[in-house]
Amino acid sequence: MALPSKYAIGVDFGTESGRAVLVDVTSGCELASSVHQYAHGVIDRTLPGTTITLGHDWALQDPNDYLEVYKHAIPAVLAESGVHADDVIGIGIDFTACTMLPTTADGTPLCFLPEWRANPHAWVKLWKHHAAQPEANRLNQIAEEQSYTFLERYGGKISSEWFFPKAWQILDEAPEVYAAAGRLIEAADWAVWQLTGVETRNECTAGYKAIWSKHEGFPPNEFFKALDPRMEHIVDEKMSRTLSQLGTKAGGLTEEAARWTGLNAGTPVAVANVDAHVAVPAATVLEPGRMVIIMGTSNCHMVLGAEERNVPGICGVVQDGIIPGFSGYEAGQSCVGDSFAWFVKQCVPAAYTSEAEARGLNIHQLLEEKVARSKVGESGLLALDWWNGNRTILVDADLSGVLLGMTLATRPEEIYRALIESTAYGTRIIIDDLEANGIPVREVVVAGGLPEHNKMLVQIYADVTGRTLRLTGTSQGGAFGSAMHGAVAAGKAAGGYDSIFEAARHMARLRDEAFAPIPQNKEIYDQLYREYVTLHDYFGRGDNDVMKRLKHLKEEVRLDSH
Amino acid sequence: MALPSKYAIGVDFGTESGRAVLVDVTSGCELASSVHQYAHGVIDRTLPGTTITLGHDWALQDPNDYLEVYKHAIPAVLAESGVHADDVIGIGIDFTACTMLPTTADGTPLCFLPEWRANPHAWVKLWKHHAAQPEANRLNQIAEEQSYTFLERYGGKISSEWFFPKAWQILDEAPEVYAAAGRLIEAADWAVWQLTGVETRNECTAGYKAIWSKHEGFPPNEFFKALDPRMEHIVDEKMSRTLSQLGTKAGGLTEEAARWTGLNAGTPVAVANVDAHVAVPAATVLEPGRMVIIMGTSNCHMVLGAEERNVPGICGVVQDGIIPGFSGYEAGQSCVGDSFAWFVKQCVPAAYTSEAEARGLNIHQLLEEKVARSKVGESGLLALDWWNGNRTILVDADLSGVLLGMTLATRPEEIYRALIESTAYGTRIIIDDLEANGIPVREVVVAGGLPEHNKMLVQIYADVTGRTLRLTGTSQGGAFGSAMHGAVAAGKAAGGYDSIFEAARHMARLRDEAFAPIPQNKEIYDQLYREYVTLHDYFGRGDNDVMKRLKHLKEEVRLDSH
Repeated sequence: MALPSKYAIGVDFGTESGRAVLVDVTSGCELASSVHQYAHGVIDRTLPGTTITLGHDWALQDPNDYLEVYKHAIPAVLAESGVHADDVIGIGIDFTACTMLPTTADGTPLCFLPEWRANPHAWVKLWKHHAAQPEANRLNQIAEEQSYTFLERYGGKISSEWFFPKAWQILDEAPEVYAAAGRLIEAADWAVWQLTGVETRNECTAGYKAIWSKHEGFPPNEFFKALDPRMEHIVDEKMSRTLSQLGTKAGGLTEEAARWTGLNAGTPVAVANVDAHVAVPAATVLEPGRMVIIMGTSNCHMVLGAEERNVPGICGVVQDGIIPGFSGYEAGQSCVGDSFAWFVKQCVPAAYTSEAEARGLNIHQLLEEKVARSKVGESGLLALDWWNGNRTILVDADLSGVLLGMTLATRPEEIYRALIESTAYGTRIIIDDLEANGIPVREVVVAGGLPEHNKMLVQIYADVTGRTLRLTGTSQGGAFGSAMHGAVAAGKAAGGYDSIFEAARHMARLRDEAFAPIPQNKEIYDQLYREYVTLHDYFGRGDNDVMKRLKHLKEEVRLDSH
Repeated sequence: MALPSKYAIGVDFGTESGRAVLVDVTSGCELASSVHQYAHGVIDRTLPGTTITLGHDWALQDPNDYLEVYKHAIPAVLAESGVHADDVIGIGIDFTACTMLPTTADGTPLCFLPEWRANPHAWVKLWKHHAAQPEANRLNQIAEEQSYTFLERYGGKISSEWFFPKAWQILDEAPEVYAAAGRLIEAADWAVWQLTGVETRNECTAGYKAIWSKHEGFPPNEFFKALDPRMEHIVDEKMSRTLSQLGTKAGGLTEEAARWTGLNAGTPVAVANVDAHVAVPAATVLEPGRMVIIMGTSNCHMVLGAEERNVPGICGVVQDGIIPGFSGYEAGQSCVGDSFAWFVKQCVPAAYTSEAEARGLNIHQLLEEKVARSKVGESGLLALDWWNGNRTILVDADLSGVLLGMTLATRPEEIYRALIESTAYGTRIIIDDLEANGIPVREVVVAGGLPEHNKMLVQIYADVTGRTLRLTGTSQGGAFGSAMHGAVAAGKAAGGYDSIFEAARHMARLRDEAFAPIPQNKEIYDQLYREYVTLHDYFGRGDNDVMKRLKHLKEEVRLDSH
């Protein structure tokens, strides 16, 4: 008689909603999934229940929305699958990052407390909260002046999205909130804390978002003191120097969390992970040489290296930051699906909209169909994919988009394709940058909604990068990788696995279809890529800072009119 | 008792139709106008009545369509105005140029003859017939190698649109047509010939389109011999060295033409003119320092100079070519209204189309309304207006459009405005080029449909150029100027005028409204213009020939697919 199947649950906390997936640990089959929308979504105008307005770069969240995901999405996957709680051997979660919040010493979010609820700084600062740019600029300046080498691990620059700029903004603008915060913590770790009753902190977010490294730890106290004397002991006072490796167990479900979820108390919970990074083992990538790209509104590129090297312009390199035993390299493009969506919303004529409606297609499908027959290079168009700045390798938010080569015969679908191509060139620059620094990229696995729905895009990426592209077998993104980590937290004795490598071998898979580069396309794309690089360097490396001057002028003019 | 009013008729032969206007010679009032569409319009696919297909750069016309304009539009204005033929003292005409045709020695178009009708080279080659580019390239190369100085009068390059490349194409591809052509003649002069029965040739088209100058005449026979020995005597065999000054009388109406038009035989007919140039006196411009811009699908810039200077990149300078006694300078932008039309057709989303429909606006009006409130520089966008190449000052058809500065917040109306601004920068470069070469431009008069319907555009041109803009009083474009020339052909004794200066004083006027530069806008546009010039030179002067390489690649790829 076969043993009864065992299951793991993964929960992925996204920007607008949370998603749970229930996976058969032996086969990797997904039995059920459930999405729960956050009641408050992204809070970027007024603080809920108040008339307090937020600055235009702000983006907050309500931590209660995360708890609601536990209370709705987990019971939903149990109900949908008919799986009994006794057969769920582990849970893993992953989160957007850096998404951080101030809490009391016992983990209560300050925004849950009446005395702090009306202070925006008491709420969760979402990853895309950009209002800490002044702090990031000062941090980078001080780190450079004082020659801190940690900058090299992050492509030379700490982002305003990351942990210390956000913490520093709290101190700058609401010192009373900073003082009241017993803990400053990643939402990922906070969410695990709520399940287990135990505060743990994962190495992944610490490494990629909080300037921590396995060898050097956090920056020294004098660095924080140089930022602001009140921050000197931020790590020891409000964070922790004890960090947990990915794939380990954070604890077991509390009685309360068991009631929320319908699972058994004591069910093993994995250390928290980051949404993009957890997708790497789910994409079967557990060794150097294969890049995973999470394609969505933006692109996140991850690749493993045998050793830690400094690569200019990448988002970060973290030892064990993705898969234990390897240096995890992360790079990114800040605008991919977002620019296609922009185009479809702002630049597609009514005749196309009507045609799509009449034929039951969405606009993306129609544009793809119209341009699919055209040859590479036939449009004469070239774009720089900087509608939202450039993350890797220029690390410059002040860059903007370029479209070149238009004639009176240029059609919308040609522009659409040029935008897709430009993001592929941006990915190739990242690959070239990694390889030039000794990190090989021989194959690419893509995950996310974009490649699933746009095969032309996948082929273009293959042709432009000259690499074969494969698609992940799961469409559940991070949640599936989190379920894998749940199975590892449970361990082999409980019917799970003792390592993420074993878990991946049994649970993760790729789709059969592979997208190999088409030689004649690659040849032409090689020419176009050279043109892209020339423009990339001309506009991105200081030869002509017209984009920065235009942005500066725009800001001046807008200020004038207020 | 007041003398009875006298009238002149102007006929403007455009690309798709001809237009007649009847004007009161004393007051300049327009009493009637009538448009007659050409039955064959632009012939660019198959030769009428045959299955003979034309190359993709071809553009022909049927000369009979021009005669039909005489037969319909002139009777129509007489009927509409109620003016008696006895009171019509003169006729003037203007034409697109270089629009040329082969005829027999008596002026019969070869395409009227059955034996030639099936040969495309027997028809009229319209101004935008571009299939003579190979001949133009060879002509320029030979002229440069042999150091002919005439190139300097034309900004350094002879266009494929002009007379000798077109004539040479006939010889190259249809030597039998070339041989049969007793005359090769501008359609403008042919159209006057049909009215008067006398062949005359005007100085304007000869100067701007056929490499003729008052001082040097045509290029020497050895130049034509160097092109092709059979062309050595082209001027003496098929053209004429006797040219008539603008504003003089070509002859009187023949009996036959009187029957076509309903006018009296003998009515004075002015020497033919070019549509753009004849608009200059109609815009009250009869002295140096004031530029006339005919704004339409493209821009044509004309300004008078006290002396003849060589200005790099202009279309041409011709002594007496616009107004007797002055050097007439012509420059141009090959894509103005055309790029706005492209944008409106290809890039405006359905939501805008619906809003415009619901509110009874056209799309241009809606876009203008949406962007009119925004400040100069607020969009952060900058464009190069080269959707159809660059005529002046780069003289390069292989350049293409650029749009720079897009973000995810960029809206269609901002792109629309950036396109308008880019054409204004292109005009400012022309003005700067003229002034740098000693041709002052202190004020600008604009004519054409575009400025009449788009006041935002006119203000942008004022702000960008730093010049006050005025609009012509007539919306009849060339036809009004032709009527003025008709009054001059009649002469004072007949109730007309003895010079175009006198005619302009009485007949031409500007609208009262003046568009002065707004100082704070000009200041910001000065900054943006500097950025435009930097990009203009980078992409246009060889620093980065990416546009040419993309165009070359495009052509290669398209050839491959055939």
